[in-house]
Amino acid sequence: MKVDVLVIGGSAAGIVAALTAKSNYPEKNVLLVRKEEKALVPCGIPYIFGELGGSDKNIIPDSGLQSGGVDLKIGEVFDIKKDEKICELSSGEKIEYEKLIIATGSTPLIPKWLKGAELENVFTIPKDKVYLDKMFEKVKSLQNIVVVGAGFIGVEISDELKKVGKNVTIIEKQKNILSLAFDEDVSQIAQALLESRGVIIKTGCGIKEVVGVEKAEEVLLENGEIVKADVVILSIGYQPNSSLAKKAGIKINERGFIIVDEYMRTDDYDIFAIGDCAEKRDFFTRKLNSIMLASTATSEARVAGMNLYILSAVKTFGGTIAIFSTAFGGTGFGAAGLTEYMAKKEGYSIVVGSFEGTDKHPATLKNTHKQFVKLIVAKESGVILGGEVVGGESTGELINIIGLAIQNKMTIGAILTAQIGTHPLLTSAPTNYPLIKAAQVVSQKIRASLFRN
Amino acid sequence: MKVDVLVIGGSAAGIVAALTAKSNYPEKNVLLVRKEEKALVPCGIPYIFGELGGSDKNIIPDSGLQSGGVDLKIGEVFDIKKDEKICELSSGEKIEYEKLIIATGSTPLIPKWLKGAELENVFTIPKDKVYLDKMFEKVKSLQNIVVVGAGFIGVEISDELKKVGKNVTIIEKQKNILSLAFDEDVSQIAQALLESRGVIIKTGCGIKEVVGVEKAEEVLLENGEIVKADVVILSIGYQPNSSLAKKAGIKINERGFIIVDEYMRTDDYDIFAIGDCAEKRDFFTRKLNSIMLASTATSEARVAGMNLYILSAVKTFGGTIAIFSTAFGGTGFGAAGLTEYMAKKEGYSIVVGSFEGTDKHPATLKNTHKQFVKLIVAKESGVILGGEVVGGESTGELINIIGLAIQNKMTIGAILTAQIGTHPLLTSAPTNYPLIKAAQVVSQKIRASLFRN
Repeated sequence: MKVDVLVIGGSAAGIVAALTAKSNYPEKNVLLVRKEEKALVPCGIPYIFGELGGSDKNIIPDSGLQSGGVDLKIGEVFDIKKDEKICELSSGEKIEYEKLIIATGSTPLIPKWLKGAELENVFTIPKDKVYLDKMFEKVKSLQNIVVVGAGFIGVEISDELKKVGKNVTIIEKQKNILSLAFDEDVSQIAQALLESRGVIIKTGCGIKEVVGVEKAEEVLLENGEIVKADVVILSIGYQPNSSLAKKAGIKINERGFIIVDEYMRTDDYDIFAIGDCAEKRDFFTRKLNSIMLASTATSEARVAGMNLYILSAVKTFGGTIAIFSTAFGGTGFGAAGLTEYMAKKEGYSIVVGSFEGTDKHPATLKNTHKQFVKLIVAKESGVILGGEVVGGESTGELINIIGLAIQNKMTIGAILTAQIGTHPLLTSAPTNYPLIKAAQVVSQKIRASLFRN
Repeated sequence: MKVDVLVIGGSAAGIVAALTAKSNYPEKNVLLVRKEEKALVPCGIPYIFGELGGSDKNIIPDSGLQSGGVDLKIGEVFDIKKDEKICELSSGEKIEYEKLIIATGSTPLIPKWLKGAELENVFTIPKDKVYLDKMFEKVKSLQNIVVVGAGFIGVEISDELKKVGKNVTIIEKQKNILSLAFDEDVSQIAQALLESRGVIIKTGCGIKEVVGVEKAEEVLLENGEIVKADVVILSIGYQPNSSLAKKAGIKINERGFIIVDEYMRTDDYDIFAIGDCAEKRDFFTRKLNSIMLASTATSEARVAGMNLYILSAVKTFGGTIAIFSTAFGGTGFGAAGLTEYMAKKEGYSIVVGSFEGTDKHPATLKNTHKQFVKLIVAKESGVILGGEVVGGESTGELINIIGLAIQNKMTIGAILTAQIGTHPLLTSAPTNYPLIKAAQVVSQKIRASLFRN
């Protein structure tokens, strides 16, 4: 079999790359090969355990690929022969390609040192419907759940399991939950909310061992504390699926990610890598990092799809701004760019401003939610380095406004002159828009330094 | 009395200018003078008649001015003596200023040719609590309401009055409702929704006369049709309140607006004008227009407040993008920049792309709303000229994303490489984000022209 464009992997990155490729090069045929019979909406996975009541309502329909003109094959690529430009499937089938896009994703991390990880009812959260369906059935009948790791997946799944009546305890080694995305002030808002919903949170102490005979029974923490655990869910990170690329002789970086340029090309110009398996760099410093997010993956996928045959001078991927949002208990949380902590650590002299208002106006309108915006700004240039948002349903798009500002290297001055649409039922007031008010706090601090007598 | 900064007018523009002035020049004292005993939230006014059940829940609290260090005086400025730098109030009091900001707003238009406009129960919608309270009481006991003019105020008030059980008919001379903000496709979505909520809409035909003895009884249309009307609400436009400035010898443009530069300064460098009374230009063409919106007014107010004493090289107001949003029947509508119709009229060669998805994902989640995005793009450069959105609660911030893209003169390429945060409960899917998908439609069309064989 011979195709023009072959995409390996059927999650967000693979789908977007395949559709973008077909849209940009309609004369080429595009084939997506994935292992899974059905592809899950990746960010919907935690909701399988609560709101959605199972994985069947969390399927990415293949009709999107079909209507976009992308062919689909279920199968596992076993070998890439890059000199011959051939992929070999486990079934023995061979597919010849002109351009190859590797979007093999990532696998949950299980620390080698963790005793008891092999016990029954110890789970991770892979993007694997068969695994998750079994896990869902098992978890149903068990009551005491310990979630290890308070990144957004750990937090979301904890809240969902609490919703369906489980006893849920989160164990987090860092001082705060969601500590990669938020500074302590916002993390603590999230933590208080989650606790008010009945989730028990233990921070500042890692897990040492899962204890049990055959099945998980309890969890032993580093400080000696013991927590009852019928189920243990490990959500402590993911590692890139780069072994296929490595075996093919494609260069891998020191963290195990496939090395790519700003067009998402590997060292073989006909092979692109995108998503969780592809090298990640920070937007501001271009330093390597290991951030895996759908926002990054789909942007990379579009860049790869657009640059497959004709290179663009401007459509490049310039590093991840780590933009993401989450929600629980009717409250949204969003982050983009550097946190205060990370910005300082990198060596920026920063000015921080924050403001709390409401997401509707007047605040007497029903369903009005508090809205908090924090901006992290480089003092030298006034450029926005990062932002954090806590609010209502509009939080997801509000953090995207900040994300766009970051990607445009907008200054506080540009934010302060911006025209912002407002409406009583949809946003905060024009006189009190928290993003603008936070920018004013920053501006006032910078002016005070500039025009000091 | 002598102050450093004097602001005339206490609605959105005046408040924001006063607070920005104090924040940027804390050593200066700032006094805001307004006529009204209590200031109304301007965009909340239509909701007085429904959701809010009166104007008392729609007050801008003066505590914002107080906590921002701005002094407040209730009074009417009667005369500006710019050579002496003195304002005289109706009370006879004189206030000397260093810098003066005129934010006198606008007044509803009543066409001179309209017979019967003087009849009882014919109203307009001024930002005047006393007037609106009387109107509210009168309207309470009357059943048949005719709203003349289907701009966003007319549409919002119609929906609110329908909510409280009135018979409401909208009369609009243009072919479509909301025709300044939206192209026909989006206007028709809005119209169908409003009609499904029981509002009767008559477009393509203007009003000729309000008929009645003492009180309004019916409305006669240009086509001879007669509509029963116990109440007539004229929402056909506003005129700038510039007579005070004109009397003072400050230059006024041909449309009656106070002429300003990009720092919002009048021809007297110590006098600024902002908001509905200040000259408006289009962002792209810099051509004069008459668009009055809080988004424009508050941006102008910040520019004036920041540039009062020290001019910035970058914090200027570069013309209105006419960004705004509205909502009724649980559906949000937003617009920014040029419509398809206006862009063509100005002479751009445009490419339009649109996409309909959902505002949550998977769409099986409860309260998922359709989300439609349309982009209007200049073919020559790929620069985004305008956007229109129909969606759920996140519509207000989604149009602000497009607004920021327009203000940054972002191209379709920059949108297509952008990192966008997504979350099941807050946004559409990363694979199906309507803004990106609409950009892809545009990109595909442009590529087809560029690389045509």
